[in-house]
Amino acid sequence: MSQANVRKSFPEQFKIYQSAVEKGLDQSLKVFPCRQRKVLEAMRYSLLGGGKRIRAILVLEFARLGGVLMEQAMPAACAIEMIQAYSLIHDDLPCMDDDDLRRGKASCHIQFGEATALLAGDGLLTCAFATICRAADCFPAQRILAAIQKISEYAGYHGMIGGQMIDLESEGKKIDPKTLEEMYSLKTSALLKAACTSGCLLAGREDLVPAAEAYAQYLGLAFQIVDDILDITGDQALLGKPVGSDSQNEKNTFVTLFGLNQAKEMAKEYTQKAQYQLTCLGAKQSFLEDLTDALLNRLQ
Amino acid sequence: MSQANVRKSFPEQFKIYQSAVEKGLDQSLKVFPCRQRKVLEAMRYSLLGGGKRIRAILVLEFARLGGVLMEQAMPAACAIEMIQAYSLIHDDLPCMDDDDLRRGKASCHIQFGEATALLAGDGLLTCAFATICRAADCFPAQRILAAIQKISEYAGYHGMIGGQMIDLESEGKKIDPKTLEEMYSLKTSALLKAACTSGCLLAGREDLVPAAEAYAQYLGLAFQIVDDILDITGDQALLGKPVGSDSQNEKNTFVTLFGLNQAKEMAKEYTQKAQYQLTCLGAKQSFLEDLTDALLNRLQ
Repeated sequence: MSQANVRKSFPEQFKIYQSAVEKGLDQSLKVFPCRQRKVLEAMRYSLLGGGKRIRAILVLEFARLGGVLMEQAMPAACAIEMIQAYSLIHDDLPCMDDDDLRRGKASCHIQFGEATALLAGDGLLTCAFATICRAADCFPAQRILAAIQKISEYAGYHGMIGGQMIDLESEGKKIDPKTLEEMYSLKTSALLKAACTSGCLLAGREDLVPAAEAYAQYLGLAFQIVDDILDITGDQALLGKPVGSDSQNEKNTFVTLFGLNQAKEMAKEYTQKAQYQLTCLGAKQSFLEDLTDALLNRLQ
Repeated sequence: MSQANVRKSFPEQFKIYQSAVEKGLDQSLKVFPCRQRKVLEAMRYSLLGGGKRIRAILVLEFARLGGVLMEQAMPAACAIEMIQAYSLIHDDLPCMDDDDLRRGKASCHIQFGEATALLAGDGLLTCAFATICRAADCFPAQRILAAIQKISEYAGYHGMIGGQMIDLESEGKKIDPKTLEEMYSLKTSALLKAACTSGCLLAGREDLVPAAEAYAQYLGLAFQIVDDILDITGDQALLGKPVGSDSQNEKNTFVTLFGLNQAKEMAKEYTQKAQYQLTCLGAKQSFLEDLTDALLNRLQ
């Protein structure tokens, strides 16, 4: 494939993706005229100008594996980022984690008030589905519907929201490793699965879905364990929250349950498992391989 | 049409619909296995066993106008009710209206705590989209996608959520009649439009959409004005909230802005306009005509 032959370096391609996603998100919130500026402003505040855009990039890369152009997959990529953004807004609310800061700036409810933040979250979640529908210009409806189905299931009460619920219920309690893994699977891997599978489904490549799901499952676990480790060893800039906040908040993490060394081993193991799925997907020596490594290598 | 010839009485048909919707909703929340019982319990608490199901019934009736069977349109009807239920849960939260009661029982956050109520609302909104996707067994994907698009737009920040935002921002202020009408259009008519149009779209009857939207617009306004009037004159059982609470809360209503008599006239006028649209839709002397009258006749 000519694209593979002239492949850009990982950091170059990553930046291209990030800036395209940022632009796509900005435009997605301009589609509908709206006189209620405050809720839109709050949505824009939380959606734009922050975040690594890993989930959007996974949509674009898995779509690309199936031969789909970046611009065509962009509505789905934006939809996934909107769901991620809504979940962070609601997660930061006083009745949930009560976080005043998000990515180094005031969280949405601090900036706009609780009620507006609540509605901004609702608005982003709803807008995610309106946005992916815009992909109808490029794909058969059947494919978009399949993607919507996966996204709504993985983001739902038996997916991401279920993970938030385990988190809530395990607060201040010691939980067993199996429950912790389930929590991470649902809180983090589920939306990554939505991202990877929706890329495959837009491309009409249902055959890639099982490996894409397995990849996302392992990537999510590796990602969370690395976060747990960085909470102990890392610097605040890399982590996006104060170092040591997990143990202060008596959070259950892979480090508190298994110790630092075993947690590091587990992060490597899950990364290798994720890489193996990329091989199955024919994505060896690809951007995705570099991305997977880069997420582990935050440890170094 | 044979269905029309053996038409059941309005109250009979209304009850048939209500009980079918109740069953459909119950089943919709059993589709996905879920180990996070508490969030599902909170979703079921708020979704089931209450509500007139007007929105679901509108989906079913507009689908029927286009020749679609009730069972086939049920996933879309359930989706709309889930969106209605989520909006009520979030609306009742302390940072919004801070209501302890909903339909005569403890509101979701009183029963389950704020965090669980927040997630239950998110869960219902997300599940609405997962649920309508299940209609793929009966309809071409194109039709379902068109319905999802309308629903996500009318429920979004430039629709229902925008109406909540106007409500928030006008608290304790006097607003002009135009803003009040816009608020009611967005808070109430928007989701009714989603209901009526998704019924048409599932039936593949895009030609019916403009009249369906106009009908929903007028019906929503009439419905809200009748609510405003009942707040002054009605009984609590009919209203579902304490009589007089609007003026106590210094809410802007058609009654406070126009006085009781003019508000009554306006409710009648909007009802007539809604009925005219039914004539355009070929639904004269139909269940829909009776339903429209019944909503106005709560005044008698």
